[in-house]
Amino acid sequence: MSELNVVGKSYPQIDALEKTMGKTRFVSDLVLPNMLYGRILRSPFPHARIKQIDTSRAETLPGVKAVVTYADTPGVRFGPRTEDWTIFARERVRFCGDEVAAVAATDEDTAEEALDLIRVAYEELPFVTDPLDAMKPGAPLIYEDKPGNIAAEFKIEAGDVDEALKKSDIVYEDRYCTNQVYQAYLEPMGAVADIDQSGRITLWAGTQIPNMMRMTYARALSVSPDSIRVIVPDYGGGFGGKFENNVHLIAVVLAQKAGRPVRVFNTRHDDFIAGNPRVPMYIDIKIGATKDGLITGKEVQVVGAAGARVVYAQAIVSTACYRVDSLYRFQHVRATGYTVYTNTVPTGCFRGFGNAQMTFVLESSLDIIAHELNMDPAEVRLKNAIGPNEVSVHGWEIKSCALKECVSKATETANWSEKRKRKEKFKGIGIACCNHVSGNRPFAREFDGGAGIVRVGRDGRVLVFHGESDMGQGQKTAYAQIVAERLGVPLERVHVAPVDTDISPFGCGSFASRGTVMGGHGVLAAANDAFRQLTEIAATMLEANPQDIECREGKFFVKGSPETTLPFRDVADQATRFRHGAPIVGTGFYDPPTVLPDPKTKYGNISPVYPFACHIAEVEVDPDTGQVDVVNYFAAHDSGRVINPMAIEGQIQGGVLQGLGWVLMEDMVTEQGKIINPDFLDYLIPTAEDAPEVKSILIEPVDPNGPYGAKGIGEPALNPVMAAVSNAIYNATGIRMKELPISAEKIFVELKKQKK
Amino acid sequence: MSELNVVGKSYPQIDALEKTMGKTRFVSDLVLPNMLYGRILRSPFPHARIKQIDTSRAETLPGVKAVVTYADTPGVRFGPRTEDWTIFARERVRFCGDEVAAVAATDEDTAEEALDLIRVAYEELPFVTDPLDAMKPGAPLIYEDKPGNIAAEFKIEAGDVDEALKKSDIVYEDRYCTNQVYQAYLEPMGAVADIDQSGRITLWAGTQIPNMMRMTYARALSVSPDSIRVIVPDYGGGFGGKFENNVHLIAVVLAQKAGRPVRVFNTRHDDFIAGNPRVPMYIDIKIGATKDGLITGKEVQVVGAAGARVVYAQAIVSTACYRVDSLYRFQHVRATGYTVYTNTVPTGCFRGFGNAQMTFVLESSLDIIAHELNMDPAEVRLKNAIGPNEVSVHGWEIKSCALKECVSKATETANWSEKRKRKEKFKGIGIACCNHVSGNRPFAREFDGGAGIVRVGRDGRVLVFHGESDMGQGQKTAYAQIVAERLGVPLERVHVAPVDTDISPFGCGSFASRGTVMGGHGVLAAANDAFRQLTEIAATMLEANPQDIECREGKFFVKGSPETTLPFRDVADQATRFRHGAPIVGTGFYDPPTVLPDPKTKYGNISPVYPFACHIAEVEVDPDTGQVDVVNYFAAHDSGRVINPMAIEGQIQGGVLQGLGWVLMEDMVTEQGKIINPDFLDYLIPTAEDAPEVKSILIEPVDPNGPYGAKGIGEPALNPVMAAVSNAIYNATGIRMKELPISAEKIFVELKKQKK
Repeated sequence: MSELNVVGKSYPQIDALEKTMGKTRFVSDLVLPNMLYGRILRSPFPHARIKQIDTSRAETLPGVKAVVTYADTPGVRFGPRTEDWTIFARERVRFCGDEVAAVAATDEDTAEEALDLIRVAYEELPFVTDPLDAMKPGAPLIYEDKPGNIAAEFKIEAGDVDEALKKSDIVYEDRYCTNQVYQAYLEPMGAVADIDQSGRITLWAGTQIPNMMRMTYARALSVSPDSIRVIVPDYGGGFGGKFENNVHLIAVVLAQKAGRPVRVFNTRHDDFIAGNPRVPMYIDIKIGATKDGLITGKEVQVVGAAGARVVYAQAIVSTACYRVDSLYRFQHVRATGYTVYTNTVPTGCFRGFGNAQMTFVLESSLDIIAHELNMDPAEVRLKNAIGPNEVSVHGWEIKSCALKECVSKATETANWSEKRKRKEKFKGIGIACCNHVSGNRPFAREFDGGAGIVRVGRDGRVLVFHGESDMGQGQKTAYAQIVAERLGVPLERVHVAPVDTDISPFGCGSFASRGTVMGGHGVLAAANDAFRQLTEIAATMLEANPQDIECREGKFFVKGSPETTLPFRDVADQATRFRHGAPIVGTGFYDPPTVLPDPKTKYGNISPVYPFACHIAEVEVDPDTGQVDVVNYFAAHDSGRVINPMAIEGQIQGGVLQGLGWVLMEDMVTEQGKIINPDFLDYLIPTAEDAPEVKSILIEPVDPNGPYGAKGIGEPALNPVMAAVSNAIYNATGIRMKELPISAEKIFVELKKQKK
Repeated sequence: MSELNVVGKSYPQIDALEKTMGKTRFVSDLVLPNMLYGRILRSPFPHARIKQIDTSRAETLPGVKAVVTYADTPGVRFGPRTEDWTIFARERVRFCGDEVAAVAATDEDTAEEALDLIRVAYEELPFVTDPLDAMKPGAPLIYEDKPGNIAAEFKIEAGDVDEALKKSDIVYEDRYCTNQVYQAYLEPMGAVADIDQSGRITLWAGTQIPNMMRMTYARALSVSPDSIRVIVPDYGGGFGGKFENNVHLIAVVLAQKAGRPVRVFNTRHDDFIAGNPRVPMYIDIKIGATKDGLITGKEVQVVGAAGARVVYAQAIVSTACYRVDSLYRFQHVRATGYTVYTNTVPTGCFRGFGNAQMTFVLESSLDIIAHELNMDPAEVRLKNAIGPNEVSVHGWEIKSCALKECVSKATETANWSEKRKRKEKFKGIGIACCNHVSGNRPFAREFDGGAGIVRVGRDGRVLVFHGESDMGQGQKTAYAQIVAERLGVPLERVHVAPVDTDISPFGCGSFASRGTVMGGHGVLAAANDAFRQLTEIAATMLEANPQDIECREGKFFVKGSPETTLPFRDVADQATRFRHGAPIVGTGFYDPPTVLPDPKTKYGNISPVYPFACHIAEVEVDPDTGQVDVVNYFAAHDSGRVINPMAIEGQIQGGVLQGLGWVLMEDMVTEQGKIINPDFLDYLIPTAEDAPEVKSILIEPVDPNGPYGAKGIGEPALNPVMAAVSNAIYNATGIRMKELPISAEKIFVELKKQKK
């Protein structure tokens, strides 16, 4: 592995040209013969009883082919985790946006017009939108069988926290509040559904979890999972937002009723009010340290708002409770998490998956502790940082770990000490670290790991099949590089098939920063199998032993005799001839060294590798307006060996910018139970104008458990941003913000207070 | 193999319900975003010089996105066999229908309108349409470098024909003429072409030879074959007509120029005048026999009209020359074939592939000889019939052969002797036999055989990949049955993927009645591989040895202990879990015991199995009009073990009806170089009204070389029809017709002559 030819080199994403030239066919571009257009009627109230639905006028509108409500569905309760969904609201709506009815018509305008003709008689009910309010006695109950509106409670404890805090030289205790933000992918959610004569469903959807989704939907539709085929064409982003959603199921139900294919895509407004944005949290933290800056113990309580349905909020709250515990050498920790129903949009996965929320809190707290102890915040991180070949408090077996190098390299590159010394007014510098997983054993439950199929065609074209999902993050390119490296061919020879549950291997999907490690190992194993078959042919042609055959840059040769080569294409062609048309098909899988954690203690190694990062933000705060300008940004990452430096820098820049949006600008504002800024006019995300120069620093330990030593990058790129910026703002202004976003308005108010 | 569960049982075609309910998406239903519609401007003259093409007015018509002519193409000469094609006519047009220009526009009407705006200045040239005329000195030359317009000459000789004929008791010598007929598939030819940003071409086309087609087109477009991906959706019939055709390439060239996907489908008119109908032939036969009815020797000369391009005419003429020689115990044969250019539509493959033409001639001749010798025509067949485990005069190694049983069973079922005895006026009965191949080693040249991929998904759904083509004949169903039988699962569990050259194995395609034998063996080998992998898992679950595992009706069990079973689905699920998402993927191939024949003598075994048939037709001739009514039809077939009796009966009924159309009704009439009946108003094919009851008689020797003992059926179903009917007409009226079709008009004229 000393000499790599494709892995470790920068390449534009293999589909970059198609995308740049506007040639990519995204899922919402799909047209089927005879296809209808669907639109969804959503609740205008946060909580109401449905007294009557009259669809008769809509049904008679020319061009309308199907109108569906709860009455047209199997009516079962389902959900990816908690079975609290129905496809359409039954009797009650529980959030503004709840699905009440849907229409399929010959065009979008007719469908829209038909929605206006559906008469729904509602009786408004009292509602609650704040999770702390929702937990109070007397709060309106969103589900009768959930007292206190508590959907789930999570507890984890290790060591003796009380004793540890008691013995601390300093204990910091506070409440933080993280807000609700939207994934803001370019292409709204939706699907095209088609039903064949046997009733089998084909669903084209942009989804991060094609295989798991179809299992959820099979329950929703009361059919077997093999009655559903999910195909994932190119789609415009996900960032965690594209898991299960009723919009897909509504396409199916409309197609079933109309007997024609139906396309249903959210408008941007629909996507804001009925997507699955980030879980907003109240986080109480109590953390102790010695006067030398060593963390003694930590206790947290997380209250997360699930909205009207638990989508993945429960898992996200759990993650918030304890993932950071493996960032430092914690020994005594306790956490309680409450996932709470509210009459708001159901919340789900978003890059960082709870860890981002808690990283903001922990890394703010460490900054405060460092300040209290008059220590360099970087020093505090270095003192507590977990290291390679350690086992964390929750049993995570960390192999490679360059967290300390991340801190050192980031501070060195940022000129951290110097800048802190010659501190100027309203200019500040802040630091934050993070850890993450690359796969999460308990998430998919049934099994972890990855699998691949590698087909070598007669012409030497290599096609890779995987069961994960490329939402634009570049998964396909990483797989192509791994397979190209293993087979010894140039990257352009390797192509990656779209996921199709009928054809691809089973894969858990794109979440938990698992794609490169799990899927990468899966396609690598398949490439090994294909290579073995190829060497058998090449060996015959070169009159050598298969084990002596190598391939490099598309040429086979016998080890030690690189002067006689055989083009890869010729070997593939010969293989197909020898095999009378049968292409080389390699299959393989990866069995990660993970375990399902103990159900009680959660102790156990949940990921094969663990990435780490340290970010440093430099800000200037406008004293007159409170506006924060991020002038410099340094992101040091240990993501193991980097498969594609250009791609990982893209991930880092994207993650940082998304984090900057969250910490400084973005907020889904709910008033009277209604999101009042559900569009890009009122909900501002950063643009290129807002982007600082992000200096990526890549530290590359070769992890023994990563494919070619790689670890994940997707989420670590975002996790530390909020704290790094908040800490820099504190450094610039002395203002400590504990509620996101840290908008200019809020700083302005604080600055005014300071002036008094 | 004693107990078969799926093979040998009747099933409707696996896609029958979709088709019956109008749900199937045929290739011409395909819609791509941004797709343009193309139309082709064709030559109105059989032979002319192109002086000028002015496309300027067409180019400025609103909605027109591309206009292409020869100038827009690489201009290379190419062709599947003979490189005499260009994508568009260059300088000269050589038949009415020759491609001159094409237009892509936003809709079909605009494209059509634009064609009218293209001005082409032609200078008409002398032309020749009859191949015998074309061979004469002084005939207009269609290609300057082809004197006598002879595209190809074929010679084959075995034994001493002259001596054999000399020693004969009777020698019959005559000239026959077979006409030009159209394949009359329901969906005209066409394609949708799309070019990606790298220039790679995706072509959706209904084609019998996706893999070979892309090699031809790669040469035409001066690109490598892997620059072309061919996908074959469901399509509406082929019957040999859907091989390569310029219509597909024109879609590509338009898409390249327009930068958008382009759909080009022939109108029915286009398809008549520029498809590739059957090669019309003049056949001279000289055949001798002993007074006992034993054939002594045979000499034939075939002159086939290629039209303006050799498509497959050369191979078809060759086939006509010698395939029948393995039907009987010929020892002394000689044949000469001329493939001749004419200013008519280029001719190509059509069910029967030359063998059908010659079978008409040979089986008419044997009828005449029998009559001359005063022998029962059935008796003459029985006396000469080839038998099992014989090697024919050209080295064909016949394993199973139930030709004699076909004759016996057919005559017995038809009550042949009885009916011949109590002969009524204007009622007649006729017999004809045929042989055929199931695959043709020299056709695809590079290699023969078949290959498959069988994927078993987590849910136990089985997906079969093959590289052949289902044009509606039921290939998918045969493959599904073979795989279901091998895996031991019910048929409904097995599905067959459409051919996609990026994903499927390489396959030669659907021709030469090879699909079931070659592709069937290929998918069977892949199923063996998948089954082996499944038994490993099942063995672990059942705690037994893998070699003791069996599966029947979707349940695994240990040999001898059928009471403990494991559902197939559970084993598949467990396999996927064990393998962390990797599905079972079996690959396999079939290496047939065929050889490339000696280039000079053509001696060699070209097919692994050989099907045989004997047909008997009963007719009534209307003495006033000459109208022939086929009142009874008996078709006895040896196609080895029958995979699906319902499907084979469908093939037989279709073949018989197509033969009846040819012998009695169909004719492409050319006047002044122009087909004057290029539509279904003037070109009549049989309808259900014209269909006699066809009694299929299936004799099923289990051929050791067939998959589960099967042989092909597609072409043998048609080959004997023309002679059987013609012989019956002779029996009814004493009129011997040597020119097809035997229309009512022709019989009327002959009846009038008789009355004089």
